[in-house]
Amino acid sequence: MKATVYVTIKQSVLDPQGNAVQGALHSMGFEEVGKVRVGKYLELELDTTDRAEAETRLTAMCEKLLANTVIEDYRFELN
Amino acid sequence: MKATVYVTIKQSVLDPQGNAVQGALHSMGFEEVGKVRVGKYLELELDTTDRAEAETRLTAMCEKLLANTVIEDYRFELN
Repeated sequence: MKATVYVTIKQSVLDPQGNAVQGALHSMGFEEVGKVRVGKYLELELDTTDRAEAETRLTAMCEKLLANTVIEDYRFELN
Repeated sequence: MKATVYVTIKQSVLDPQGNAVQGALHSMGFEEVGKVRVGKYLELELDTTDRAEAETRLTAMCEKLLANTVIEDYRFELN
């Protein structure tokens, strides 16, 4: 089973990396760019066929390692 | 218009960050985790209504700044 995990910075938290990217794009002439937020994108191969079990385990992985839940949100897709 | 950009390391390129995540997950007891690939995920607000123009501009942003096309692939969604 393949899992895709998206980790994003919470809306209430400043994103200096996003601001830097926005500034760089502006200075390159891409004036139409408004707010930029940068997150992480992970693809994991899981050696399991039980979808419910995989969801439980993935939630644990996100809570314990992949996301810092103080400042980040996460979501995942299984396919 | 809102754009979502996914930047991933090409399949032929080693991903040490992904390997580190895989190792950490294994050591935490998530033995079912196989290959892990880590990429970037960007959300951009674009001050434009022309979809075709936005696609052209986004392609330029990815080629010039957001992705290192020597080692990374990118794709984006507009909505």
